[in-house]
Amino acid sequence: MAELLSKIIEMIKPLDEGAMAQARARQDILTKPQGSLGRLEELSVQLAGIQGKPTPEISHKAIITMAGDHGVVAEGISAYPQEVTPQMVYNFLGGGAGINVIARQVGARIIVVDIGVASELEPHPQLLSRKVAPGTRNMSLGPAMSEEQAIKAIETGIEIVTAEVANGLDIVGSGDMGIGNTTASSAICAVMTGRQVAKVSGRGTGLDDKQLAHKIEVIDKALAVNRPDPKQPLDVLAKVGGFEIGGLAGVMLAAAAHRIPVVIDGFISGAAAFVAVALAPSLRGYLIASHVSVEVGHRVMLNHLGFKPLLDLDMRLGEGTGAALGIFLSETATRVLAEMSTFAEAGVSEKSEAGDS
Amino acid sequence: MAELLSKIIEMIKPLDEGAMAQARARQDILTKPQGSLGRLEELSVQLAGIQGKPTPEISHKAIITMAGDHGVVAEGISAYPQEVTPQMVYNFLGGGAGINVIARQVGARIIVVDIGVASELEPHPQLLSRKVAPGTRNMSLGPAMSEEQAIKAIETGIEIVTAEVANGLDIVGSGDMGIGNTTASSAICAVMTGRQVAKVSGRGTGLDDKQLAHKIEVIDKALAVNRPDPKQPLDVLAKVGGFEIGGLAGVMLAAAAHRIPVVIDGFISGAAAFVAVALAPSLRGYLIASHVSVEVGHRVMLNHLGFKPLLDLDMRLGEGTGAALGIFLSETATRVLAEMSTFAEAGVSEKSEAGDS
Repeated sequence: MAELLSKIIEMIKPLDEGAMAQARARQDILTKPQGSLGRLEELSVQLAGIQGKPTPEISHKAIITMAGDHGVVAEGISAYPQEVTPQMVYNFLGGGAGINVIARQVGARIIVVDIGVASELEPHPQLLSRKVAPGTRNMSLGPAMSEEQAIKAIETGIEIVTAEVANGLDIVGSGDMGIGNTTASSAICAVMTGRQVAKVSGRGTGLDDKQLAHKIEVIDKALAVNRPDPKQPLDVLAKVGGFEIGGLAGVMLAAAAHRIPVVIDGFISGAAAFVAVALAPSLRGYLIASHVSVEVGHRVMLNHLGFKPLLDLDMRLGEGTGAALGIFLSETATRVLAEMSTFAEAGVSEKSEAGDS
Repeated sequence: MAELLSKIIEMIKPLDEGAMAQARARQDILTKPQGSLGRLEELSVQLAGIQGKPTPEISHKAIITMAGDHGVVAEGISAYPQEVTPQMVYNFLGGGAGINVIARQVGARIIVVDIGVASELEPHPQLLSRKVAPGTRNMSLGPAMSEEQAIKAIETGIEIVTAEVANGLDIVGSGDMGIGNTTASSAICAVMTGRQVAKVSGRGTGLDDKQLAHKIEVIDKALAVNRPDPKQPLDVLAKVGGFEIGGLAGVMLAAAAHRIPVVIDGFISGAAAFVAVALAPSLRGYLIASHVSVEVGHRVMLNHLGFKPLLDLDMRLGEGTGAALGIFLSETATRVLAEMSTFAEAGVSEKSEAGDS
């Protein structure tokens, strides 16, 4: 395995149990019935463990949205033409996409990365041009990329996060853009969970029944041709993955190495999480599942990885839109922990032991 | 029925179908697969219908948190002593409660109302002192309040919203504080749904099994003693309700009359919604259910009223904390509708009819 990747994996440590215990103890003396803020309380404790601080802080927020193309679109597996990938990158840079709107609301900056768009993109001051290759190859005919490219994609994500840490980064969200990338993600999900392709493949941006049946056939063919080994995450990524999926896996690994929480978006980010967690099992605690997508494989994916999503709003846009909402809730969790008064501070009586005053 | 209440009920009109159709049409040309923002899209359409604007706006946001006491606490149905009600009011005014923290994050002002706290509260510039009476009577022995008091509580809510409309108000959240108020809310829920008390009564702020069994007995007794008529919402409110429940019903009615969306909080706000919707069925479309509480009756309540909550985060604090999060998501919905680029504006290709480019 490549040096940078190995080094980052070694840097990932378990969550800080001491900070978590302190956060839990503080939650229990805040002016509310114990546990009454439910998952926000759990989230504050997880964030304490990740950041290694009894009262975690979220000030610098970023969404990293990675764009890449997929050779498998030649098989007709998407409702949208491949030209939409670069068009949407320009939309991100112009501020008019869904992720721009929600990121502005939550106060997160967006880092847009061309990690493998098939066409040449105009330079733009807000665009990170880190193309591994102009799109993957058609995975129904052979590997989507070489193992060197798979490592390069992951290391690109690592490098981007490492650079951002220097700018200040308290939490990061994962986002994606790439026509055809639900096909790659379903393939990864099928390999990693051992489920039938048909059980983990959905309509993506809007396929009808016939088109969905064709998509499933194409994924089945890709798995038969490539035979990816579920025990070798780099093999899975190379054979049936995508550059943005590898890049996001790198984002997750590097963030965890720097004790930065990662809010994962939907189905494509879930595929990246499969690769990342397989490479570094202790990464798991650093990830926060923002939402469950309507894309059918996503719930299977989250269950398999052991995540309970914060939101279930029938979303399936990607880009990091779910992650942005998850960042908002993470900030709520940290603010509650830091800013609420304790019973003693506010002069509020605690629960009576008899419960019958 | 009292004049102000009748007048407000008459003012409530159906949602604006024209504005909703325009909002839906705009969602379909924004740069995303149609429907891919799921419930945020639906919410934007509902908000358009409520405000009567194709692109609804949320700038002025408020949470109205009403505090009242319950005579039934004499039966030992709460884990906390009654003195916590005024203590928590002071905590709201001091800015240290859960609702303060979340309202600050979402940019909503909090309007704290003493509508029936049992003790005298110190005057405070941020406190609206609108006490109907110093707590309700013990509903296990007779009616919690007179029908005149029930109307006064509702009209107090109406007056507060009417005054706030003049200050600018684009969305309002409902919040509550009152030791013993899950007992009153379970009683209302049992009457309005016809369910057994045991099926709609929960642990409130933290009862054990024995205490919960006792709470259920007390509610059963209150229903047997009072025999509230489910067809007469004022009768139900007077016999087994609470001043804050009546006040919040008034908030909902007045907001709808002024075409202002109301984000309802948890179990106590749900009880208020039962009363309000029974008084004015066309109110329903003006309400947005923020979350489902862990309090067992809440899901029954939401299903009966036909609401699908936006969030399910195991919360049970009340105060308006769930409503504040719902206000955030409502604002997300309006921002997406207003700020996203269309396919034409961004130069993004639309879905290909063949689906196989």
